[in-house]
Amino acid sequence: MKVLVLNSGSSSIKYQLFRSEDWESIANGMVARIGEPEGEVKHNWLTPDGSQDATQETRAIPTHAQGIDNIVACLRDSGALADVSELAAIGHRVVHGGPHFNKPVIVDDAVVEAIRDVVPLAPLHNPGHLAGIEVARQLFPKVPSVAVFDTAFHQTMAPTAYRYAIPEHLYTEHRIRRYGFHGTSHFYVAKRAATVLGKPLSQCNMITLHLGNGASAAAIRAGACVDTSMGLTPLEGLVMGTRSGDIDPAVLIFLWKNLGLDADQVDRLLNRESGLLGICGVNDMREIDRLAAEGNEPAELAIGVTVHRLKKYIGAYYAELGRVDALVFTGGIGENSAKIRARACGGLQRLGILIDDAANEATDARGERCVSADAGEVKVLVIPTNEELEIAQQAMTAVGLQ
Amino acid sequence: MKVLVLNSGSSSIKYQLFRSEDWESIANGMVARIGEPEGEVKHNWLTPDGSQDATQETRAIPTHAQGIDNIVACLRDSGALADVSELAAIGHRVVHGGPHFNKPVIVDDAVVEAIRDVVPLAPLHNPGHLAGIEVARQLFPKVPSVAVFDTAFHQTMAPTAYRYAIPEHLYTEHRIRRYGFHGTSHFYVAKRAATVLGKPLSQCNMITLHLGNGASAAAIRAGACVDTSMGLTPLEGLVMGTRSGDIDPAVLIFLWKNLGLDADQVDRLLNRESGLLGICGVNDMREIDRLAAEGNEPAELAIGVTVHRLKKYIGAYYAELGRVDALVFTGGIGENSAKIRARACGGLQRLGILIDDAANEATDARGERCVSADAGEVKVLVIPTNEELEIAQQAMTAVGLQ
Repeated sequence: MKVLVLNSGSSSIKYQLFRSEDWESIANGMVARIGEPEGEVKHNWLTPDGSQDATQETRAIPTHAQGIDNIVACLRDSGALADVSELAAIGHRVVHGGPHFNKPVIVDDAVVEAIRDVVPLAPLHNPGHLAGIEVARQLFPKVPSVAVFDTAFHQTMAPTAYRYAIPEHLYTEHRIRRYGFHGTSHFYVAKRAATVLGKPLSQCNMITLHLGNGASAAAIRAGACVDTSMGLTPLEGLVMGTRSGDIDPAVLIFLWKNLGLDADQVDRLLNRESGLLGICGVNDMREIDRLAAEGNEPAELAIGVTVHRLKKYIGAYYAELGRVDALVFTGGIGENSAKIRARACGGLQRLGILIDDAANEATDARGERCVSADAGEVKVLVIPTNEELEIAQQAMTAVGLQ
Repeated sequence: MKVLVLNSGSSSIKYQLFRSEDWESIANGMVARIGEPEGEVKHNWLTPDGSQDATQETRAIPTHAQGIDNIVACLRDSGALADVSELAAIGHRVVHGGPHFNKPVIVDDAVVEAIRDVVPLAPLHNPGHLAGIEVARQLFPKVPSVAVFDTAFHQTMAPTAYRYAIPEHLYTEHRIRRYGFHGTSHFYVAKRAATVLGKPLSQCNMITLHLGNGASAAAIRAGACVDTSMGLTPLEGLVMGTRSGDIDPAVLIFLWKNLGLDADQVDRLLNRESGLLGICGVNDMREIDRLAAEGNEPAELAIGVTVHRLKKYIGAYYAELGRVDALVFTGGIGENSAKIRARACGGLQRLGILIDDAANEATDARGERCVSADAGEVKVLVIPTNEELEIAQQAMTAVGLQ
């Protein structure tokens, strides 16, 4: 059987097709600029001889339905999927499940309504997800759609971790609380880390750091999430590519009152013009690293502020957990930047965190690996994340086939 | 000689008079509701036989100048201050010194301008301070006025700690950064803690927790502040009596866009209606403690959220410092709530933090004391703060008399 994973946004749909026997990824791609005069279809697939092939086309894609038609045509034409009946499930990434979902669910009308219900909490994401889900259900009524939520893994947090210190009615009436995101990634790397540690996940305390263009940290006790750095939205927490992360809330009031910005301008400023980009004008950590090595001060500051924030979260979650088996780095920066890993862990010997420089800096190292020194009580692991695979496997489990 | 300490707000002036020979507080009080039809003057003083006496009067106090006239009359009538010429200095508490001041300064015209320059950063505080400073300089031209800043102690923070991950021009043009507050208190208790530890402050790493109606944490390395929880304003950081502390900045955008609140309403909501009050309807920790003991769930949640945040800051600052000599509790809650101290320190054995329950809960204990178990590497200290004394002593030092 095969599982199709869809990540449907407001104007694009990313996809990946897995073969469930060996969980090989046999095709992936995206349709972009849905609804614009000129859309784009990119498709990559595994040929029968094991090599990769790719096509790229420009054409108008007026609706999400036509976007998914295009994806199915690409899959069929490339031989990746002879017929839709081969699909055991379609796994849909859904950013925000609000308080409703703590695990993946097969989509029915009630689930659609629940996802629609939390659109105010994720106005940029959930409408696009709903478009993809509704089209998939219409086009392929016999293939179960499974919604896999970025928020689900974090639903085990206690109220002391998820409640903000704001008037209670904002929680009870408007559901303003910490939800957390990247849950699929945190869960995936936590499971893989438990395997590396040789212990059941339910016996592991971990701090997982997903460091990509978006970035978040999670504190995991006995396999369950007890805290995470993103909050009501993915804006809170670590320094990200273009998002500020933590900031005095009074800064927004200052921008509003003193600089006359409106809500949309502040939203754009903190979500798209801040973070690494705000500090040094660049949001790609590889480029920032190169600039810092040349003595560029804003680039060095961007790294410094990022590392400072990371270290605070490592300490904060260590204190919450009391004992930590593993500190896990994942995401593009977490997997590839030895410098960020080394600096975030620097000076934490008394927490049992000690990097092995040779292992950490090994330029040929890929895949799951331990980069801590034997003397450190806490294993520092690099675990490449694979959210699409996790969504595919969770979808398969949800339909009772795994 | 004597030193008068003034804390001049927009409509009130608090004062305290010290005798510099033994730093005894010989009088204190406040004038309140300046500019309202009915003001109030409260005065307490030490009589020659060592007992306390007090007066309280209701009368109109139209201006800050008349407020200070009233204070001087009270001091004179009660025999606390025969003549203004006895004053070596007047120490003025100033909340916000912006980036200009890292220590107390004798006020001249340039200092007044510098305090005025940062009014946009502290619109609720600095105008009241300026009113008090200008009146004192006019009324007592021969007595040096010394400005003592809440922000000064935190000026040793590195840019990696004080810069937010927002566009650089907001820092360079609008001076938006972390400043930190309660600095006079953090510095005072750090000095006292070093004495208790028997080491020079310059050799001490500490985490100081000022927990009153406002609350903040500071990380101190080798006697100098390297991080603190309050930011551009005193809104950021720990859970406070009526302030939210840390929150997803997107919550403000949500309130703005979805609930239609304006800047002043959000300001009031987060500064005056949040914190403990927001969660459980009460902002007095003693009352909350009583309610929680009776099984009141919101009260228990308010304590839980407060402790959760405290523990995160202890861990975060531990990670920043790498090694900690002392964890210091001060302020009304820090000095008096054994429960908050015990719960904030619970489960932190691997950080070397271990409370001695008997010492912590001793109901007759007052004054500076150690409440940690001998087995803990980190001394947990309770140090009553005394910001007015610190301001008086710093003022005396600034005028070269100590």
